[in-house]
Amino acid sequence: MGRTSDARERILTAAKTLLLSRGYSALGVAEICKAAGVPKGSFYYFFASKEELALAVIDEHWTEQRAAWTRALAGAGGADEGGVMDGDGGVRPLRGLRRLYESTAAELREGQRNCGTVTGCLLGNLALEMSTGTAAVRERLREIFDEQVVLVEETVAEARGRGEVTVADAHEAARALVAQLEGQVLFAKLYDDVGRLDVLWPNSLALLGTRTSAGSE
Amino acid sequence: MGRTSDARERILTAAKTLLLSRGYSALGVAEICKAAGVPKGSFYYFFASKEELALAVIDEHWTEQRAAWTRALAGAGGADEGGVMDGDGGVRPLRGLRRLYESTAAELREGQRNCGTVTGCLLGNLALEMSTGTAAVRERLREIFDEQVVLVEETVAEARGRGEVTVADAHEAARALVAQLEGQVLFAKLYDDVGRLDVLWPNSLALLGTRTSAGSE
Repeated sequence: MGRTSDARERILTAAKTLLLSRGYSALGVAEICKAAGVPKGSFYYFFASKEELALAVIDEHWTEQRAAWTRALAGAGGADEGGVMDGDGGVRPLRGLRRLYESTAAELREGQRNCGTVTGCLLGNLALEMSTGTAAVRERLREIFDEQVVLVEETVAEARGRGEVTVADAHEAARALVAQLEGQVLFAKLYDDVGRLDVLWPNSLALLGTRTSAGSE
Repeated sequence: MGRTSDARERILTAAKTLLLSRGYSALGVAEICKAAGVPKGSFYYFFASKEELALAVIDEHWTEQRAAWTRALAGAGGADEGGVMDGDGGVRPLRGLRRLYESTAAELREGQRNCGTVTGCLLGNLALEMSTGTAAVRERLREIFDEQVVLVEETVAEARGRGEVTVADAHEAARALVAQLEGQVLFAKLYDDVGRLDVLWPNSLALLGTRTSAGSE
């Protein structure tokens, strides 16, 4: 059974790359199987349909991404977080937000090196392509973005509790930050320029109403 | 030739609706012709390819949208702008920005009534679907979003000239506002909820660093 589970992983990996570069609608099961190097029968052994495969890719992607978000926001790294500048004067919860943006940019840069262009956000791409399409995928994407908002909201609420930001509604603020992230990733993709994400941090300080001078760092 | 030019318009109208609801990749010329009620030969009389049609739809859409953006931002309506609240204390250039958000929400609501769901932003949808695809469409979309940023930048620069906002870089600020708009429209589409746009105005005040209390209106 070792070979069989390897085939499932290969299908998921190939499908994720193809979904990122070409989207869902344009993609056929035959093409996925060819890229994965598995026979079509093998595909239908694991997945009832292309939709079921897409849901599996989304879930696997979010499992990894959630771990990365949690790591960045919680700041498990403590004081030694490498390239992260310390210019924000010890505002610890907000530093998590900054780490999140930096890890997002790093991930996009890695994708750019591998694929030749910025492929953007798998979930955002699918959200725009499919939200008027299949209900199951739309529902799953809604749940995931809700989770993203909750993760960011915890950081914002913590910063507010410490009096470091003045924003009134942590939930709305978290939604704004996630929407800003998606919007800038869209433009990073369109202009093939990860540098578009550089403004996320100063803009977030402005959006949150930091006590220090916002947007000037 | 009256019938012929009518056919071109019908193709463009049908294509725009289908592009909004189903995207580019999933769409075939036959389907567009069927929806437009024109024979396939008629299609190829006007358009060399689906790509050329997409470019024509994009151009027609942006011509209309640019007029709406210019109208909203310039505030040709003067003092009598109907539903626009006056709570921002006579900050005239910024009121243009607010009108822009309100007209965007109104347009999405109209689309929701007609299509049953929020279909989002045609340009943003295509940007995510196609920016790793055809170069011609990607180039055109880049030009259009650049124009959007310039339009918003003029408003921001004017507000800054009057000392009404404190943001340092009007160009970066305009990019942030357009990215925020695209991000929130993405979520309006995904959650089928135009109300997602309500935060654009207070968030913009925070991003721009207004002299009045930001984010609380």
